[in-house]
Amino acid sequence: MEERQISKAVIKRLPRYYRYLGEILNSGVERISSGELSNKMQVTASQIRQDLNNFGGFGQQGYGYNVKYLHDEIGKILGVNRIHPMIIIGGGNFGHALANYDFEKDGFVTKAIFDVRPELDGTAIRGIPVMMMDQLEDFIAREPVEIAVLTLPKSRVVEVAHRLTRCGIKAFWNFAHLDLDVPEDVVVENVHLSDSLMQLSYRISNYEEEQR
Amino acid sequence: MEERQISKAVIKRLPRYYRYLGEILNSGVERISSGELSNKMQVTASQIRQDLNNFGGFGQQGYGYNVKYLHDEIGKILGVNRIHPMIIIGGGNFGHALANYDFEKDGFVTKAIFDVRPELDGTAIRGIPVMMMDQLEDFIAREPVEIAVLTLPKSRVVEVAHRLTRCGIKAFWNFAHLDLDVPEDVVVENVHLSDSLMQLSYRISNYEEEQR
Repeated sequence: MEERQISKAVIKRLPRYYRYLGEILNSGVERISSGELSNKMQVTASQIRQDLNNFGGFGQQGYGYNVKYLHDEIGKILGVNRIHPMIIIGGGNFGHALANYDFEKDGFVTKAIFDVRPELDGTAIRGIPVMMMDQLEDFIAREPVEIAVLTLPKSRVVEVAHRLTRCGIKAFWNFAHLDLDVPEDVVVENVHLSDSLMQLSYRISNYEEEQR
Repeated sequence: MEERQISKAVIKRLPRYYRYLGEILNSGVERISSGELSNKMQVTASQIRQDLNNFGGFGQQGYGYNVKYLHDEIGKILGVNRIHPMIIIGGGNFGHALANYDFEKDGFVTKAIFDVRPELDGTAIRGIPVMMMDQLEDFIAREPVEIAVLTLPKSRVVEVAHRLTRCGIKAFWNFAHLDLDVPEDVVVENVHLSDSLMQLSYRISNYEEEQR
């Protein structure tokens, strides 16, 4: 595969390709043309060809794509072909909901949930232990942890992110409604729910204009 | 304000402007230059000027932006200056977590949560009633509902979205890991958590390359 400079827009679309190809694979289809994929995904066929060309193409002119090969290769690009141990900070409803999610199938394995409420100490969610925040440093020293999921109140998240960074955590999945200021070698992926709702309300408000 | 054709990328950035301006406003600052805003938001000043020019500018050369005015105007563009009644479909951990969120401050007011589990009937989350799915049509006929929040299993979401569409719901905030196929006049904003995690793992895997 050649040296690449891939745009953020393409990277944003890759998980969606991965998801659709996974479904197509599960339905037993072995080869798919960009046209068929285009129909399913509601993306133009030329967009699909262009996107996949970023990664060396994968397809043979006239023969379509080998679904399994393409799925696996995109999986490798996304890094879901290996295990990503995670911890969830915050055992509230949100942390609880995330712990119940089936992220394991893509390699994201939650090892522990951390909270400050003593009544949660020693409990478990789907077999995942809930621990106290004062055990955080020990746990990370003992167990490999790649991603910290932050489901904390805005007022506490900055301090906790610092603490995690000091422990060597290099990746945050941040649900707090705040942009974290982290060292250069740390990656943060934000899920800002209010921002998403506002985009929805923008689209509701501007729907009629969009149609013109 | 002149006739506009605003790119999706700009619209994606608007909620973030709104959030930062809200914080600046709360800290008592009345005017801000694009340079200062740029420092806070880690976006270039020229990007800020360009983005805001899409909406007629708001700023006076050399005087900076009036924070309150800019905040309010962006709020109007995003449609958060009015009330958006919502219902949450699915009273599991995720629906529960969303019901506990403070979305009201931006006008998103949850009116009811719907579920199928009889033991939840008549309960409430933060004062918001939990109702049974067989009351859905009656409720929507009786109460104004703009947005339906879908926190259902993938296997049930398609049928429920159809049902809601038949009731006249035109906006979905979809947390199910599936792209909904909806009529043209319905808007859907997806929060695909797995996709977000995969983008994080892509960035972890490609961090070293990014630095070169």
